Amino acid sequence: MAKALPKRSENYSEWYNEIVKRADLAENSAVRGCMVIKPYGFAIWEKMQRALDDMFKATGHQNAYFPLFVPKSFLEKEEEHAEGFAKECAVVTHYRLKKDPNGKGLIVDPNAKLEEELIIRPTSETVIWNAYKGWIQSWRDLPLLINQWCNVVRWEMRTRIFLRTAEFLWQEGHTAHSTEQEAVEETERMLGVYSDFVENWMAVPVIQGLKTPGERFAGAVETYCIEGLMQDGKALQCGTSHFLGQNFSRSFDVKFVNKENQLEFPWATSWGVSTRLMGALIMAHSDDNGLVLPPKLAPIQVVIVPIYKTPEDLAVISEKVNPIFEDLKAAGISVKYDDSDHQRSGWKFAEYELRGVPVRLGMGMRDLENGTVEVARRDNLTKETQPLEGIVEHIKTLLDDIQQNIYDRALAFREDNTFTVETWDEFKDQIEKGGFIMAHWDGTAETEEKIKDETKATIRCIPLNSIEQSGKCVYSGKESAKRVLFARAY
Amino acid sequence: MAKALPKRSENYSEWYNEIVKRADLAENSAVRGCMVIKPYGFAIWEKMQRALDDMFKATGHQNAYFPLFVPKSFLEKEEEHAEGFAKECAVVTHYRLKKDPNGKGLIVDPNAKLEEELIIRPTSETVIWNAYKGWIQSWRDLPLLINQWCNVVRWEMRTRIFLRTAEFLWQEGHTAHSTEQEAVEETERMLGVYSDFVENWMAVPVIQGLKTPGERFAGAVETYCIEGLMQDGKALQCGTSHFLGQNFSRSFDVKFVNKENQLEFPWATSWGVSTRLMGALIMAHSDDNGLVLPPKLAPIQVVIVPIYKTPEDLAVISEKVNPIFEDLKAAGISVKYDDSDHQRSGWKFAEYELRGVPVRLGMGMRDLENGTVEVARRDNLTKETQPLEGIVEHIKTLLDDIQQNIYDRALAFREDNTFTVETWDEFKDQIEKGGFIMAHWDGTAETEEKIKDETKATIRCIPLNSIEQSGKCVYSGKESAKRVLFARAY
Repeated sequence: MAKALPKRSENYSEWYNEIVKRADLAENSAVRGCMVIKPYGFAIWEKMQRALDDMFKATGHQNAYFPLFVPKSFLEKEEEHAEGFAKECAVVTHYRLKKDPNGKGLIVDPNAKLEEELIIRPTSETVIWNAYKGWIQSWRDLPLLINQWCNVVRWEMRTRIFLRTAEFLWQEGHTAHSTEQEAVEETERMLGVYSDFVENWMAVPVIQGLKTPGERFAGAVETYCIEGLMQDGKALQCGTSHFLGQNFSRSFDVKFVNKENQLEFPWATSWGVSTRLMGALIMAHSDDNGLVLPPKLAPIQVVIVPIYKTPEDLAVISEKVNPIFEDLKAAGISVKYDDSDHQRSGWKFAEYELRGVPVRLGMGMRDLENGTVEVARRDNLTKETQPLEGIVEHIKTLLDDIQQNIYDRALAFREDNTFTVETWDEFKDQIEKGGFIMAHWDGTAETEEKIKDETKATIRCIPLNSIEQSGKCVYSGKESAKRVLFARAY
Repeated sequence: MAKALPKRSENYSEWYNEIVKRADLAENSAVRGCMVIKPYGFAIWEKMQRALDDMFKATGHQNAYFPLFVPKSFLEKEEEHAEGFAKECAVVTHYRLKKDPNGKGLIVDPNAKLEEELIIRPTSETVIWNAYKGWIQSWRDLPLLINQWCNVVRWEMRTRIFLRTAEFLWQEGHTAHSTEQEAVEETERMLGVYSDFVENWMAVPVIQGLKTPGERFAGAVETYCIEGLMQDGKALQCGTSHFLGQNFSRSFDVKFVNKENQLEFPWATSWGVSTRLMGALIMAHSDDNGLVLPPKLAPIQVVIVPIYKTPEDLAVISEKVNPIFEDLKAAGISVKYDDSDHQRSGWKFAEYELRGVPVRLGMGMRDLENGTVEVARRDNLTKETQPLEGIVEHIKTLLDDIQQNIYDRALAFREDNTFTVETWDEFKDQIEKGGFIMAHWDGTAETEEKIKDETKATIRCIPLNSIEQSGKCVYSGKESAKRVLFARAY
């Protein structure tokens, strides 16, 4: 049997890396900071995509595709946006290689220099608003509700698989509206969609909130976010939804004729989630035995493992398993029967545990005699013997239970690890132990910065549901109207 | 009403461009050669993707994702491959912009030069075989059957929307096998999948064949292809499937231990289709009224247009339409009810015709009285009055008929435009008129080249089903064992 995983309690970071590797989710590529998403990991991402895409379409959005390349001059048009992204751009300067006249390899052909450099999109506001200029003339063209699934590149210095990679996959919604109110509503609606997805599909409870001005998306008027708490007590931002005001419509000179026949700049939103969610999924639920997947996103929901000594035993077990396998499939459950012969059942048990398969059915000769099957749950590692009669219904219910249990457990963890603190000493003490901290803040960028410098804690968000409650800033002692959410974060 | 489309017979190229534009499929972007795929065009592409992806999975393939960037040194490893792609590479040389100290804009930061240049993938054989080195150790790891959906970049000098763009979307399958025979079988299987998809979903009949050595994919041992005939008599390559031999496993030093415990290089295939298929779809079926879509790929299969004068009329029509709309939806048909009030029904008829919606139902006050509806087919522009009773069944059958009719028509067109020629004069005469030409060829690259130079005709393929039949090369008069397929091509 393979070496055990590192324990979460001993080395969380190594534990994460090893799960990513040994559950065959992804690996680092030869290009610094870029990952290869392996088939098992990608199958999870595909399930996420499908669920999100259905939700986007149900809220009236359509998919489209915009170019990978952003002309440098586009980036320059919105000043804050440019400042935010210029530092981490992959820049295309040439369009041809040629044989090295002095050697065997290839060199960049100096005669094939682009007149204007092209940036690999770090996000597509500029490219899309440049296109919208041709798409929006009248109020009848609004709202324009577009999403795209694509790859983006941000040249990060410190990368971490799924959590922070130079190239990542994401979706970016870009909408245009005729009124400010409608755009704000859209921004909030999509935050709600993200929250619904992360809680009900990924089983990760999140706090919805607003970013402080210092943490806003470059070019946004307001950034909404959802924040999850990982098992090591660090926060992970799971998605953002931005109200962009008229910043991009003005920069790209997009105007529409309103119902009163006057020219106006439309109001914009953008919103995105990325393969970073894979990191959240892994870190929120998994344990020292490996990955724990919520049934709704598991590529394999049920694995059936035969326990046998002789080929004859396997044959009779398979005969019993086949109709169950077919019934499970017919019930819409993704099921695998692993009758491969080169690994023992004990090895298979460990392997599917490592890969987070929610339910394992073990069937041996005694089960055959008794008309039973052993049902093992991945979430709480319990086992029970069940009659084969009615097994499909039992499993359907069980998958729902597991989905709910994983969520409840993550919610209980978050509740146990959310602390209300009043004093700076308490704050410093608690932040070392991890968790979400609800504390008063005086609302200044200066205090925010100092807290970050001294403790590495950032304001994750100003929660949407936070109650007005006056108090003293935990750092400066100045007046504060409500508590905000602090944590160290990924 | 909008200006009529250019006629195919008068200006085929303009006709194509105008359909792409006016049916809202795609447009050129600000970046030379890169397109924006608009929502209506992207919805067709999504249907193509879904159908192909299901077929890939049904044949045992899994999706994964590999990096956008190819290190220059990877491209250098397979010599022919490098030579084939070096001339049209987008090259990333820097990873940061900074404020221009002498101006307001941004400049490339000279201190952020990459040690090794990165190429935007023109195709991913090198990146993927570099990863496979870690994935393949034993015969048990084979076959490895992977596909990825992604964007690729080839810096083409002459671009044409969908048909030849600098950036395009595609899928690329990359498989590894323990025997040569198995890899050849896979190459042929995937050619069959493509052929099945293009014929049965896109309704475009294709000829399956082998490329000549001169037309092979750079790095392949053998390239299989499918070729369709467009309405202007030019050929369009719709997909390719490559048997790569051991070229990439050797270049990237990937070895496996076979059942006899010996080290071997695995055998490889790769295969791809791209957004180019959108071009084939448009050009194969559309007419002077606009796009004609096969029902299986139409984002809207049925549109219902009310014909009315007063709001009261619209209300009673809508009341009658709603249950039909729901019944069609329940039958799995994608249906739209266009009761928008700012365009007249005549304008709507023309608009949905332009967009290629296969079936249009028109319902006016007289239909209401008679319990009928007017059913218009997009493919042959016929109309008939149908009783509302049984309309859903009627439409289901009709959609199947239309799918078949579009295919039959394209097949008849191809048969009428496939010519067997014997002499060089005949050849030159026929190639001017267009169509597929079946002619003898002496098998030399020299003759192939000369024919191309003199007539712009290329050997599209050596058809897989071509009969051995000795004859004289149409150009050189030398011996030939079978006919090959010539045409001018996109």
